[in-house]
Amino acid sequence: MSERLGQKNWFIADGFIPPISNGDQESHESICVLNCNLEQVELEVIVYFEDRDPLEGLFYSIEGRRTKHIRTSWLKNDQGEQIPLGVPYAMEIRSNQAIIVQYSRLDSTQKELALMTTMGYS
Amino acid sequence: MSERLGQKNWFIADGFIPPISNGDQESHESICVLNCNLEQVELEVIVYFEDRDPLEGLFYSIEGRRTKHIRTSWLKNDQGEQIPLGVPYAMEIRSNQAIIVQYSRLDSTQKELALMTTMGYS
Amino acid sequence: MSERLGQKNWFIADGFIPPISNGDQESHESICVLNCNLEQVELEVIVYFEDRDPLEGLFYSIEGRRTKHIRTSWLKNDQGEQIPLGVPYAMEIRSNQAIIVQYSRLDSTQKELALMTTMGYS
Amino acid sequence: MSERLGQKNWFIADGFIPPISNGDQESHESICVLNCNLEQVELEVIVYFEDRDPLEGLFYSIEGRRTKHIRTSWLKNDQGEQIPLGVPYAMEIRSNQAIIVQYSRLDSTQKELALMTTMGYS
Repeated sequence: MSERLGQKNWFIADGFIPPISNGDQESHESICVLNCNLEQVELEVIVYFEDRDPLEGLFYSIEGRRTKHIRTSWLKNDQGEQIPLGVPYAMEIRSNQAIIVQYSRLDSTQKELALMTTMGYS
Repeated sequence: MSERLGQKNWFIADGFIPPISNGDQESHESICVLNCNLEQVELEVIVYFEDRDPLEGLFYSIEGRRTKHIRTSWLKNDQGEQIPLGVPYAMEIRSNQAIIVQYSRLDSTQKELALMTTMGYS
Repeated sequence: MSERLGQKNWFIADGFIPPISNGDQESHESICVLNCNLEQVELEVIVYFEDRDPLEGLFYSIEGRRTKHIRTSWLKNDQGEQIPLGVPYAMEIRSNQAIIVQYSRLDSTQKELALMTTMGYS
Repeated sequence: MSERLGQKNWFIADGFIPPISNGDQESHESICVLNCNLEQVELEVIVYFEDRDPLEGLFYSIEGRRTKHIRTSWLKNDQGEQIPLGVPYAMEIRSNQAIIVQYSRLDSTQKELALMTTMGYS
């Protein structure tokens, strides 16, 4: 394995789950996480909003030497709180081990799909 | 909060507000800013053009622990000057505290929308 | 040639070969590699999955002062194993010399094509 | 002006000028350059191919405190050589002063347009 395996803190500033879908491709976002470590990593996602306090405690685990393409709509804290649809937000991803994070969105609000992706900021 | 909270100076080289929209999705660009600091941050956006001097003094504030997805068409200086539509430009974003900046564009010039995004350069 | 010619280790967290194509544009992904060195470089791609051990030994060579836009569907190890279609995965790219890696996907699952690209993480 | 104004060497690994256009949006690529310096900068673009030696000597100047969204199809060396359409290639951009480079492509090969963008690698 390479000596440089990523970073523990990642940020995505443009978060938005499109509330509308068309065709057989559902609008969604993913944070794609690569864990090159041998050990399982524990993630916390902190969600920042435009007009209220952050939503914390969205935890996720990824086994060693695995990737996980996490749909942001799957994330939930222990009070059952989730990222709302159709609201601009941002994410901080903290990991207990170095990881790599890429963000992608598929938008099928109109009939044809659009894609965008970027590496997270670390 | 993580020890690494971003940078104070960000650059976006491909700015362009598409002048045409179709369907219910309006063509637009956003600079998505994440402020993980406890304090409010003060931003200045400097707009560079191909054929004239930069437009300065486009200020914006973002509260602590908040994100703001700023449409570039909202920005205005105290003379009421704004970024013109349909003109290639670039942006420098200066903040008094470290922030994270991601740039996205939705283009609905033709009937279906297209998306693009990138982290800013810092 | 510039003094800074890239990195030896690159990561792409959002890998996915769309299994469906429409029109005359085939859905595909590419890892676009730029080798500015005078010598040929030897690459190994390691493929990480969500639910099984990594696939290793996908080798590729690129001559000196050449680029190669490698379709991920071309990669094969000496047992003939390839990246499966329609499965979320991630890639680590190791090179014996510094290179530059950009990742792009063209998705024509629906009638019109969508594009996304990002520099790899290094 | 900020103390950190970019880099002198930039790389784009995924270059491709789509040879087909539809509708009123012409398929094209741009290297969007921001020159925050007071002085004019001199650029050289070196084009790398899959199967032949690099094309050198594509020069471009940008005035101080200006941006320029350079269509790759505009670039020409003093023998009149240009980047061919429909061929995978890569670019190295060298500047005599620090600049910021972002790459974008608009593809209207099919009826609807697709967009992609990324900061260059530096």
